[in-house]
Amino acid sequence: MHPLAEQVVKGEARAMARAITYIENDHNEKAELLKALYPHTGNAYLLGITGSPGAGKSSLVDQLVSHLRQLGYTVGIIAVDPTSPFTGGALLGDRVRMQTHAVDPEVFIRSMGTRGSLGGLSRTTKEAVRVLDAAGKDVIIIETVGVGQSELDVMNIADTTAVVLTPGAGDQVQAFKAGIMEIADLFVINKGDLEGADKLKAQVEGMLDVVKHDAPWRPPVIKTVSIRSEGIDQLWASFALHQKFLKETGEWARRRKSHLRSEVLEIIHYRLEKLVNDLLKTGQYDHLLTRVSNRDEDPYSAAQYLLKEIFISREGGKNE
Amino acid sequence: MHPLAEQVVKGEARAMARAITYIENDHNEKAELLKALYPHTGNAYLLGITGSPGAGKSSLVDQLVSHLRQLGYTVGIIAVDPTSPFTGGALLGDRVRMQTHAVDPEVFIRSMGTRGSLGGLSRTTKEAVRVLDAAGKDVIIIETVGVGQSELDVMNIADTTAVVLTPGAGDQVQAFKAGIMEIADLFVINKGDLEGADKLKAQVEGMLDVVKHDAPWRPPVIKTVSIRSEGIDQLWASFALHQKFLKETGEWARRRKSHLRSEVLEIIHYRLEKLVNDLLKTGQYDHLLTRVSNRDEDPYSAAQYLLKEIFISREGGKNE
Repeated sequence: MHPLAEQVVKGEARAMARAITYIENDHNEKAELLKALYPHTGNAYLLGITGSPGAGKSSLVDQLVSHLRQLGYTVGIIAVDPTSPFTGGALLGDRVRMQTHAVDPEVFIRSMGTRGSLGGLSRTTKEAVRVLDAAGKDVIIIETVGVGQSELDVMNIADTTAVVLTPGAGDQVQAFKAGIMEIADLFVINKGDLEGADKLKAQVEGMLDVVKHDAPWRPPVIKTVSIRSEGIDQLWASFALHQKFLKETGEWARRRKSHLRSEVLEIIHYRLEKLVNDLLKTGQYDHLLTRVSNRDEDPYSAAQYLLKEIFISREGGKNE
Repeated sequence: MHPLAEQVVKGEARAMARAITYIENDHNEKAELLKALYPHTGNAYLLGITGSPGAGKSSLVDQLVSHLRQLGYTVGIIAVDPTSPFTGGALLGDRVRMQTHAVDPEVFIRSMGTRGSLGGLSRTTKEAVRVLDAAGKDVIIIETVGVGQSELDVMNIADTTAVVLTPGAGDQVQAFKAGIMEIADLFVINKGDLEGADKLKAQVEGMLDVVKHDAPWRPPVIKTVSIRSEGIDQLWASFALHQKFLKETGEWARRRKSHLRSEVLEIIHYRLEKLVNDLLKTGQYDHLLTRVSNRDEDPYSAAQYLLKEIFISREGGKNE
């Protein structure tokens, strides 16, 4: 077994951090590492938490982690910010938050931004979650900002997804527009002590009456005041209830199988993409692109030609 | 020549609408259509306009279109909403807006939402722009909501990209965080009559002093009040100035060549993706996914195996 994988499975925080760096940097031992970790995964409960910036997700997650620690669970957190394509790295908020649980060896926190290619974030997030899973974390929280396509892709990892709204933020309409109804297993009205919290709760319940009136699971709507730790126990109870529901209905296994299928597809796409980029990097097809640029050739015929070249090069090429 | 392509090149609005529907639905004559249109493209000036929801982009674009029409230019608009993965179709705002220019045959407006696969929106938007380009529109405006990865991909189509900010929206920090500085060729402070407009302008100029102090093009920061048509002529003058800069420095050709290169890559990826999905749809690899699910096989080895199968099936397979 890969020595780093061995340390990860023992739950060593430093090894976990290094393994995730391997993943982010596409280290040449990454595939070996992930293969070694895989048999040790599948045990953690994966929670997705999403919502607009300013919804108070950070403090909510913070309180949830404290609650989970009191119950004796170990916790891993992956904080994802897909709106940051250039900077990558850590979110400001996480730096602050990391200090809250910094002295607790059973809590592991890592931030991830978009680096490199489109669709890459979903894949690297999955892989990072796998590291925490193999390390034996009981609950893994995947936290994202916003409700765009990237966030939805990231949420596709979780067993249970919670959407955080706040009164008066004007983002509830935005949330519904973005199809959040389809992915939310539960709703959190955070800053529940603010004016408009009850009205917002009623609006969400009203939407659920329409959209989920005959669904086997109706997403609960939970009011929290994260800065005063109110509603956190009820929030966790709702998560646990949803987990029970998933397991009893067989939906747990179905979701997980569907997520794995997506992951295998993502790996294939990533490798094919790499193959194409490597081929173009040789420069031997630059004349083709110039022809397209001059309108002597159209992009569709050029792509067709290159596809043939890829398959020809592959036949005599190396295995990877 | 494809009869629909012929009608598009003549500038017939109904044919343009139908061609874009072909693109959205991946009609089986789509490739033929786009190949026929391609030699007629490359003449339009492509403007990208992006900004947060509520920044007043719709009324800004509306005013810009009126200004362009007064100058005698024909205009096409593609309004893209990547935050809408489920609903697809038209934005509410565009329905309203369409009525403003509904009687003008020289203005063509179309809304696009995310449908189907990841990365697909950027490709279909490019193709829709190509339809308007082939139809002879002088200026094509690509409008997107927000500043996430999807929007940045969409903006990768434009010759000139404008980022719209508003005072007091609290989104300026968000804009800088998302790396907007790297893609903005000019900034618009819309709702420029609101308190804080001058402060925001100063903030943006301050950022530009740092980031663009030795750049050959320093993005101008233009104040507009779109509901009162103020600053629109100055906005267009800045666009025109940037176009002149691009052409004089050779950057115009470089950008367009780079965009075409990305497009050829996207077409290749899309076709490979289709190949993989078709293979998996046969169901003959379901046992493999079950093995992954049971942890008897890891996703990386499964992907590797499937990749080999793809190349084997391809060797004896049909040409497409």
